Amino acid sequence: MAISGPLKLNFQLMGADGPAIGPGKAMVLEAIEQAGSISGAGRLIGMSYRRTWLLVEALNKDWRERVVETRPGRGKEGGAQLTPFGSALLSDYRAIEGRMMAAADGEDLQRLIEARKGED
Amino acid sequence: MAISGPLKLNFQLMGADGPAIGPGKAMVLEAIEQAGSISGAGRLIGMSYRRTWLLVEALNKDWRERVVETRPGRGKEGGAQLTPFGSALLSDYRAIEGRMMAAADGEDLQRLIEARKGED
Repeated sequence: MAISGPLKLNFQLMGADGPAIGPGKAMVLEAIEQAGSISGAGRLIGMSYRRTWLLVEALNKDWRERVVETRPGRGKEGGAQLTPFGSALLSDYRAIEGRMMAAADGEDLQRLIEARKGED
Repeated sequence: MAISGPLKLNFQLMGADGPAIGPGKAMVLEAIEQAGSISGAGRLIGMSYRRTWLLVEALNKDWRERVVETRPGRGKEGGAQLTPFGSALLSDYRAIEGRMMAAADGEDLQRLIEARKGED
């Protein structure tokens, strides 16, 4: 979910079985990039290991190329990193999201922002 | 939810108590415009009378001006229409949404669309 002030954006690109990428999966990819493992990524974003792992599985299934590469390790301790394809996917998603947020701005948005109650 | 091919957009403008406008409320406003009553609007979009009515109440509470005006009538049969403010709110929301959808387009989006599986 991209958030800018009072504006919240949830944008998804649908695949054959539901969203192939959306805010949740993008957040997981970012967290893997930072944490270097699926378990570390889950801890970083407050998501259970199981749910994080399921989102990674879905990502690897829904795209033509692998998105996350896992390295062998003991159970949850194995490392994980984005493939070059996964990095490009994440940065494309963020770029599109950024353009959409920028496009929201305008007189009409300012008018709506000011017309809400309790925002004196 | 604005949908264009595989792209789904949910954009919300937050108020003091949650989204002041978003896809669900915009849909209700459009349905009231078409149906001329809250009950008719609910039928049009497959939403219960109660939920439709609650969204209208929230809209009338969250903005500085009334968004929907109800006309007296027997129970659920009373009519409803957008105020001039409500019409302007809906059209501003749709305009912002349209710009955001248009801004999504680009080489990166095309790349993502083609990189999904099962879309030969």
